[in-house]
Amino acid sequence: MSEVRQKASKAQSSVPQLNRLNTEQKNKALLAMANALIAESESIISANAEDLERGREQGTPESMLDRLSLNKERIAGIAEGLRQIAELPDPVGEVLESFTRPDGLHIEKLRVPIGLIGIIYEARPNVTVDAAGLCLKTGNAVLLRGGSSALSSNRKIVEVLHQALAKTDLPPDALQLVEDANRSSVDEMLKLNGLLDVIIPRGGASLIRNVVANATVPVIETGAGICHTYVDESADPVMAAEIAINAKAQRPSVCNSMETLLLHAAYAEQHLPALAEQFREANVSLKGCDTTRRLVPDAIPVTEEDYATEYNDYILNIRVVRNLEEAMNHIATYGTKHSECIVTRDTAHAERFLHDVDAAAVYHNASTRFTDGFEFGYGAEIGISTQKLHARGPMGLPALTSTKYRITGNGQIRQ
Amino acid sequence: MSEVRQKASKAQSSVPQLNRLNTEQKNKALLAMANALIAESESIISANAEDLERGREQGTPESMLDRLSLNKERIAGIAEGLRQIAELPDPVGEVLESFTRPDGLHIEKLRVPIGLIGIIYEARPNVTVDAAGLCLKTGNAVLLRGGSSALSSNRKIVEVLHQALAKTDLPPDALQLVEDANRSSVDEMLKLNGLLDVIIPRGGASLIRNVVANATVPVIETGAGICHTYVDESADPVMAAEIAINAKAQRPSVCNSMETLLLHAAYAEQHLPALAEQFREANVSLKGCDTTRRLVPDAIPVTEEDYATEYNDYILNIRVVRNLEEAMNHIATYGTKHSECIVTRDTAHAERFLHDVDAAAVYHNASTRFTDGFEFGYGAEIGISTQKLHARGPMGLPALTSTKYRITGNGQIRQ
Repeated sequence: MSEVRQKASKAQSSVPQLNRLNTEQKNKALLAMANALIAESESIISANAEDLERGREQGTPESMLDRLSLNKERIAGIAEGLRQIAELPDPVGEVLESFTRPDGLHIEKLRVPIGLIGIIYEARPNVTVDAAGLCLKTGNAVLLRGGSSALSSNRKIVEVLHQALAKTDLPPDALQLVEDANRSSVDEMLKLNGLLDVIIPRGGASLIRNVVANATVPVIETGAGICHTYVDESADPVMAAEIAINAKAQRPSVCNSMETLLLHAAYAEQHLPALAEQFREANVSLKGCDTTRRLVPDAIPVTEEDYATEYNDYILNIRVVRNLEEAMNHIATYGTKHSECIVTRDTAHAERFLHDVDAAAVYHNASTRFTDGFEFGYGAEIGISTQKLHARGPMGLPALTSTKYRITGNGQIRQ
Repeated sequence: MSEVRQKASKAQSSVPQLNRLNTEQKNKALLAMANALIAESESIISANAEDLERGREQGTPESMLDRLSLNKERIAGIAEGLRQIAELPDPVGEVLESFTRPDGLHIEKLRVPIGLIGIIYEARPNVTVDAAGLCLKTGNAVLLRGGSSALSSNRKIVEVLHQALAKTDLPPDALQLVEDANRSSVDEMLKLNGLLDVIIPRGGASLIRNVVANATVPVIETGAGICHTYVDESADPVMAAEIAINAKAQRPSVCNSMETLLLHAAYAEQHLPALAEQFREANVSLKGCDTTRRLVPDAIPVTEEDYATEYNDYILNIRVVRNLEEAMNHIATYGTKHSECIVTRDTAHAERFLHDVDAAAVYHNASTRFTDGFEFGYGAEIGISTQKLHARGPMGLPALTSTKYRITGNGQIRQ
């Protein structure tokens, strides 16, 4: 039996036991995991050093090595994340519907764990702990498949967590790490129907594309974000500039940052030159349509391909449009249905935009950067779903649950 | 461009217009569809006669031809189904969460249509109308791919519905029928990511297996039901017999009927011979384990394969178990997580069964035959989901919706 199938079976076999844990037992296990990470910081840092050394030998860029790197402070932050998950309300058992039928049949719909969740992710070892914590808190078993560049770190972290869990009521088998670094282990996970209940990919666009294109196990698609801000004719120019700069430059590397700014022609004529100057001060390079380049001569000509690109960088496309309709058409053509914003003082325009634009999150007069489980007050985030089934937008703990109908009667039969 | 892609694109292009319809406009369209079916009964029956004739020539069994056959009364029933859908509350626009963040950002989570739904189904032409009605009521476009044996009927029905819709605000393009009877048209639908938002298969086990194993478009899996009833030691014998007979014999052809009866040993010793007699009177053939055969000598020996079979027929497996634990282990091994029942007077046993058994619907003292959207009071049913994501159990109209976050601010930016 392959490693993937063997570990998935082991995790799946812990599901009934997991399902019987109460909230207190699960929280105790999470706190034990946090304490163990702190106590074993030294050995985790040593394992991490192996990954870093291998990365350097292979010529991994410094920015990637930085994301991979662990130190006492980062480990303390990761452990603190587990403590925060422990403090969140447990969605399992929540009654979503409750009603009695005319024949006396009592029906309840309640939240239950999903079962076994597969997470496929890339280099950052903090995801190992974060994903494990979120899945275990919701009573799910988890099969982790991290990137090979963090394998030593991940292996040590899981070893430490297993030792911690062994002293709790939570079965250590519920947490499994696939160590096989071959691409074939991912391919096998994608087809593990009957063992894996869902796969959540966390990582870059190519990882997610591969998972969506090849998985027969249900997938929750996350991540890709080509987000727009449309500044309408009636927008408050100060507010519009603040929102646009924030959406692009506050943290360009994330999926909810803006890639293309759409400006109403009248607004552009009056305000674009000053706004371009503000972008320059924020180190943002500009690409623009013809009208943009008339108003901002040093902007680079923008292409169709640019409009369809998620830069995740200090680069912005600017397009001047005639009206709201043209802006919404642009968004429908190039957007990824993640987060879209209109800045306007015209409430009818705002209403049309909020209703008609098809995206997980639609904004009026606020930065798209707020699309985030923590910013929404969910206290956690497994990812931001860009698909329409099961969960859409920032996913908190309830997104890691399924439901079940409990029906109690006194002998009812169907006529 | 293939027929499938062309019709999917056409349906997808109607999505923005559909999305702007209010409940009244959608209901008017549904009523116009119902009236047109009645008015055009004759031509639909003629088209249906072609299907029936072709079926007879190909030697289709009479029971299949009966399911395929339409007459005035059946068409009136189908039209009445549309009127009932029109009367149901519209889930679109329902606000599921609404809260204001400390910085004043107001966030609402509301129900929106999914977009374009693909339905792949078999011979019964009533599904054409039913699926169209449910999808359009929830503001979704729909791409139908019915079985080739009902092609003439389906084509005429869709033609009639298109003519009816042309006189309403609902764009006729929102309803598309794939006429290509080759298997390749199904295969193409399964990979139509980016155009199709979800596929719902409606039909037999092999249809569903093919869809689940090959689709990269998200699927809502429906249907397969190997359901059990466990009669505990303390069960009321009259109630237990009524529930067991009902679960097996009231309508054996459907997914929520029982395939295997599990009996506590003490109950079996006292009551099985009389119960077997009742099953015989209901025309049910019995297969049994060794203990069953000692008590019911004419029962056929049951095999492992029998336990894993969905008979959908007047055949029942009976297995005698030592206790609740053994019953739950049997269910975990052979069940399809559809509907499972315990009959008992022991509330602790009932509680354990309801909590520990992993299924869409778990019953205490009632027949599994109640797992049904109409019986649950949902007024409609797209199918019974046996998967854990998005929807589980009977799916009413809300299962055909997604959600969207609407965020309104007054200039909030992220720090």
